[in-house]
Amino acid sequence: MRDYVEIGIGREARRTYHLSDIAIVPSRRTRSSQDVDTTWHIDAYTFEIPVMSHPTDALAGPEFVMEMDRQGGLGVINAEGLWGRHEDLDAAVAQVVDTVTDDASLDFTGAKAIARLQQLHAAPIDFDLLTDRIGQVRASGATVAVRVSPQRARELAPVVIKAGAELLVIQGTMISAEHVATGGEPLNLKEFIGSLEVPVIAGGVADYTTAMHLMRTGAAGVIVGGGTNTNHYALGLEVPMATAIADVASARREYLDETGGRYVHIIADGEIETSGDVAKAIACGADAVMLGTTLAPAAEAAGKGTYWPAVAAHPRFPRGRIEAPQTDLVEDEAAPTLETILHGPSTEPFGNQNIVGGLRRALAKCGYTDLKAFQKVGLSVSR
Amino acid sequence: MRDYVEIGIGREARRTYHLSDIAIVPSRRTRSSQDVDTTWHIDAYTFEIPVMSHPTDALAGPEFVMEMDRQGGLGVINAEGLWGRHEDLDAAVAQVVDTVTDDASLDFTGAKAIARLQQLHAAPIDFDLLTDRIGQVRASGATVAVRVSPQRARELAPVVIKAGAELLVIQGTMISAEHVATGGEPLNLKEFIGSLEVPVIAGGVADYTTAMHLMRTGAAGVIVGGGTNTNHYALGLEVPMATAIADVASARREYLDETGGRYVHIIADGEIETSGDVAKAIACGADAVMLGTTLAPAAEAAGKGTYWPAVAAHPRFPRGRIEAPQTDLVEDEAAPTLETILHGPSTEPFGNQNIVGGLRRALAKCGYTDLKAFQKVGLSVSR
Amino acid sequence: MRDYVEIGIGREARRTYHLSDIAIVPSRRTRSSQDVDTTWHIDAYTFEIPVMSHPTDALAGPEFVMEMDRQGGLGVINAEGLWGRHEDLDAAVAQVVDTVTDDASLDFTGAKAIARLQQLHAAPIDFDLLTDRIGQVRASGATVAVRVSPQRARELAPVVIKAGAELLVIQGTMISAEHVATGGEPLNLKEFIGSLEVPVIAGGVADYTTAMHLMRTGAAGVIVGGGTNTNHYALGLEVPMATAIADVASARREYLDETGGRYVHIIADGEIETSGDVAKAIACGADAVMLGTTLAPAAEAAGKGTYWPAVAAHPRFPRGRIEAPQTDLVEDEAAPTLETILHGPSTEPFGNQNIVGGLRRALAKCGYTDLKAFQKVGLSVSR
Amino acid sequence: MRDYVEIGIGREARRTYHLSDIAIVPSRRTRSSQDVDTTWHIDAYTFEIPVMSHPTDALAGPEFVMEMDRQGGLGVINAEGLWGRHEDLDAAVAQVVDTVTDDASLDFTGAKAIARLQQLHAAPIDFDLLTDRIGQVRASGATVAVRVSPQRARELAPVVIKAGAELLVIQGTMISAEHVATGGEPLNLKEFIGSLEVPVIAGGVADYTTAMHLMRTGAAGVIVGGGTNTNHYALGLEVPMATAIADVASARREYLDETGGRYVHIIADGEIETSGDVAKAIACGADAVMLGTTLAPAAEAAGKGTYWPAVAAHPRFPRGRIEAPQTDLVEDEAAPTLETILHGPSTEPFGNQNIVGGLRRALAKCGYTDLKAFQKVGLSVSR
Repeated sequence: MRDYVEIGIGREARRTYHLSDIAIVPSRRTRSSQDVDTTWHIDAYTFEIPVMSHPTDALAGPEFVMEMDRQGGLGVINAEGLWGRHEDLDAAVAQVVDTVTDDASLDFTGAKAIARLQQLHAAPIDFDLLTDRIGQVRASGATVAVRVSPQRARELAPVVIKAGAELLVIQGTMISAEHVATGGEPLNLKEFIGSLEVPVIAGGVADYTTAMHLMRTGAAGVIVGGGTNTNHYALGLEVPMATAIADVASARREYLDETGGRYVHIIADGEIETSGDVAKAIACGADAVMLGTTLAPAAEAAGKGTYWPAVAAHPRFPRGRIEAPQTDLVEDEAAPTLETILHGPSTEPFGNQNIVGGLRRALAKCGYTDLKAFQKVGLSVSR
Repeated sequence: MRDYVEIGIGREARRTYHLSDIAIVPSRRTRSSQDVDTTWHIDAYTFEIPVMSHPTDALAGPEFVMEMDRQGGLGVINAEGLWGRHEDLDAAVAQVVDTVTDDASLDFTGAKAIARLQQLHAAPIDFDLLTDRIGQVRASGATVAVRVSPQRARELAPVVIKAGAELLVIQGTMISAEHVATGGEPLNLKEFIGSLEVPVIAGGVADYTTAMHLMRTGAAGVIVGGGTNTNHYALGLEVPMATAIADVASARREYLDETGGRYVHIIADGEIETSGDVAKAIACGADAVMLGTTLAPAAEAAGKGTYWPAVAAHPRFPRGRIEAPQTDLVEDEAAPTLETILHGPSTEPFGNQNIVGGLRRALAKCGYTDLKAFQKVGLSVSR
Repeated sequence: MRDYVEIGIGREARRTYHLSDIAIVPSRRTRSSQDVDTTWHIDAYTFEIPVMSHPTDALAGPEFVMEMDRQGGLGVINAEGLWGRHEDLDAAVAQVVDTVTDDASLDFTGAKAIARLQQLHAAPIDFDLLTDRIGQVRASGATVAVRVSPQRARELAPVVIKAGAELLVIQGTMISAEHVATGGEPLNLKEFIGSLEVPVIAGGVADYTTAMHLMRTGAAGVIVGGGTNTNHYALGLEVPMATAIADVASARREYLDETGGRYVHIIADGEIETSGDVAKAIACGADAVMLGTTLAPAAEAAGKGTYWPAVAAHPRFPRGRIEAPQTDLVEDEAAPTLETILHGPSTEPFGNQNIVGGLRRALAKCGYTDLKAFQKVGLSVSR
Repeated sequence: MRDYVEIGIGREARRTYHLSDIAIVPSRRTRSSQDVDTTWHIDAYTFEIPVMSHPTDALAGPEFVMEMDRQGGLGVINAEGLWGRHEDLDAAVAQVVDTVTDDASLDFTGAKAIARLQQLHAAPIDFDLLTDRIGQVRASGATVAVRVSPQRARELAPVVIKAGAELLVIQGTMISAEHVATGGEPLNLKEFIGSLEVPVIAGGVADYTTAMHLMRTGAAGVIVGGGTNTNHYALGLEVPMATAIADVASARREYLDETGGRYVHIIADGEIETSGDVAKAIACGADAVMLGTTLAPAAEAAGKGTYWPAVAAHPRFPRGRIEAPQTDLVEDEAAPTLETILHGPSTEPFGNQNIVGGLRRALAKCGYTDLKAFQKVGLSVSR
């Protein structure tokens, strides 16, 4: 039964938990981290590691996507970002990065860099340009995943699939199986997904009911969160990730029963920065995670350490701070590679590098060898 | 039933919640933010947006009040501030602002600026001057709301109403339907309000009982909070806003039943800085909000970014820090307009601008189209 | 019934509350602050305000004690401080103050100043010198209260009483009615207090049982806390003040019943910095408060803004940080007088000045006119 | 009964508590701190104080271990640290220290120093060198305790025992009675410990079940924690120390009953920095504590104030920040001796020095004279 409190006379609120509120409790025989299997299978695709990248131009230039593939994960391209809007993609990204770097001391919230981002996104999407770029990545042999927003899914999905997208990510800050709008044609995700030839990962969702509806649309995966951090100050909306993941995992069990065996994957996107956070997200019920800021320091990331989520480019109501590169890199040191961040070896003691090595150790120390079983590990809260 | 804890043997305290403790939980089909109606009707007046400004000279010079009207909200004039005390209003406000700007590094709590404010308020109120200034605003066509304190309501209300006030705001840090004083004539609000020809908004209150009594005085609206932040350190008094709003909303339901349909509006004044906070206040039961610091950066605000609440001018026991302008404006950048702060477009990612746009999106993402229905949206607590 | 949690298997802990965890809830008709009576009667003595000063040389030089009396409160002399150890008291205090001022940037915990304090306390107590100084204060007409430790009470009490002490304060960080020591004669407080001709205030205590035993010794007042803040890091001991005061107030009720009417006063010493904290302490059940850092900025305080509690001079295990003067005084500004800190008028918005004015307003806004009744005001917790 | 919360639908988590969440509640007659007995007996060994040092080269050079012995405690040598890897031990440690000192401003997480540490640990262990060094310490008459990891215990234990180790510490971040590995021979601790001629202290553990299994291996002592702080960010694993100690103490009671009287000692390693923390750890059920950062400022510590836990040297996944020396030492001041840190006299007010004096006072003020009885003292939580 849910745990509710009365915040005022006749008004209840449910107690919810952030990933930072919980911890994993080891209580079985320890194992070797080399025995841990981190493979993630979704639809016809198999990834060595359960890691997608957040669909932002701050990460996913072509080089980054190809390197994510080599490292066993999945880099996601944002079809509504800068790829299709500017002939010189590097120069466009550099404009944002330079604004951040120049402004860091004056402009805490990054307003000037957001303004620049908005300007760059005001350019129209050139479908041919987008098609070419996606095609180049596909040609490299990397698995291609492309994100479109629910609003433009009908228009853009055919373009990106034709261009080579093998997985379609339909992602907005909050999404529902049906979107109601006066005088416009609503997007019925079930029909839409049914009409596509590629598997769809959709989100974000943050509650049982919406997740259940989204599962019934035929999506292969559901993204939990995605906008929780950025929406709290701006919209007052938040479902802390530990609760959100567990609730959606409960919907998955119910839907599995309802369908007699259709398993919908849960991808957690939010509150995940360290290898410990990855382990906690999976312990709450996720099958994979979507990483953002964690991957930003990689030498292969387009933003060279500068990071912003896709929604920071919104023309009227941007959300999500633009983060400047971390300044603790010693001057003569090179940026870590994506390989170092994902697979180590690490020289960082807080789980910011060797993310997958940390995940392996977390399972091993708790006596687990696969991700699915680890979803049942003991948890504690300490607040 | 209330939730009580025993803080010591035989001494109980009720659990209460701040707006920052709660969040809104989306769980319905999403909608378009363009379908959201933010209209606020109170008495014979209709406002496009549910926003009043806190009655402080830091905001409400004549230009600000007229611009608030143009933007669809309601700017409130403080009858006991500087409008009636100084021929050159701009110069008086500038004295405070200059003291803040000069002192920012030396004087964290703003004591020197408060001393200046106290000096400026030591001048008597010139009723003719006040009348003229209110008249000018009225002449512009803007709706005129004027605030008086409970202590001076009897004396000043006739003056400001004659001068053109269409809504009277009777506001102190804490107010009750009857004020008991030895050897002075108490203000009986019911009689007093009954004698006036304009609707009255009164507050602040923070509990069910006082709110119920205040509703029975005939007030059209009740302000919740208003002094909660400033009174905690100074007086030990505090009712966190989520609880206070919900409690007063409960009184409204009871009073609605008692009167067979008289609906008293709840205006939340406290803990509200971002568009997310506005959404939460309404989700807890408020019909409108009173904004203070949020509006201070506006180019039209009298204080040019410097902010103080009305009670900061108290001659013996000031409360409420004087806040210096935020320093993250890039030098060659102009201050945002009131229109930008209220309606966007924004370049700030944390909900400090495009307040109404944020409110619309919060409702839309939760599947609501009007403010009244949104008062029932699901809530969570995460502490 | 107490509220316990299980911190581990078979190990329980009681939930306790700090003053900062609670707030006062106004719910009655407001009153005028001028109608509030703050008189405090203890034994044959009447004070206009319920305020004692913490027995530290950082506050109580002779001038300070006399000014406390003029302002209606009670300044407490530390018999084991510097008064009896150094001919030139001002010079001794100045040595500590200068060390703090010189060291502020280098020595966060004040270790060097503590070392100086320890050296100054290594000098023996000259009984004649102490007697003379106490006599001078008594000659001024001020009520004289002197603090001795439980360890040296038997030796020093006769000296200070003969010198003019009208109230004896027996105060250690923790005290019990009987102290057990191998091979030394224990101090039996009941016998000892019975043998004195002046009323005794004793403490600190932090729980029901110890308080009850202390009340049975015949003490006129019991100090709650006194060492709670300083002992937490150093000893692991802490009873948060809201819980401690309420527990001891419960013992007072029981003891009142047991004795058929003997009322023991509760003086709260700890977690009290602002006027709001004073109001909360009384709301929890205290009759008066002991102020320390709050009074330190007074022009009449011996330490000129530097503050340390008595226990900071402990020869082997000092507790309580030495605090440097606050640096936000504008250069050409004089330090506030004790009168300003206690009675205003204030230019500080957070309740650091006009402490008694704040207390009056807290009562008035909650509809109370005397301190005793205010001990029943409604409380909330918000964590 | 355990206290569980539902973090999401169908997913529970247990409420747990840090040492910083709890406090000790005094409620008996006070005693003299001189009457307190802090002796700790484990197996055939008796220590005047219940203090071990964490097995890190940042503390335990030969001089430090001998001084720990003189001060009544037990310094632990890390067999897998630098002692056996570098002929010039001082120079090796100095390389790490210098990197920290040079880098403090540029490199918050100490990545460069960790890289240096990893390089230094890449050198093989020279058994003869290790044997010589251990032998020198043994020759001084000090009790010799040496730590090995579970992974290398079988290989190194015979070496260090032959060299003179009188107590063997088998310590990893998490340990279980049996470690499962595909294709390697698991370490069965029961058999292994049974084969040794010296008593074994093993850990860390953090839960009832693992602790019970570890007790059944024949270990004389069990380390609780050890990796809790460093593992949270990196692995998501954490059992807050108050809960962990109490749970393992419960296992000790059960095992005592099961064996008809075999008492296994609990050594707490984590969250312990001040004398107050030591008192709390024992109040939760520990028999002794393992100190790390607390001892780092000692003049005798190898790292000269720089500190790192053993696991910071992990080749691929280091955990535990390298801490730079505290900078609040006045320039002309010498570092405190180990004697000062353990036995005082202190000039630090927060329990960072005179650790054992603080522990004595905590017991005395609560009316206890021995550590075992103090495990039953009253506790509170205040969050």
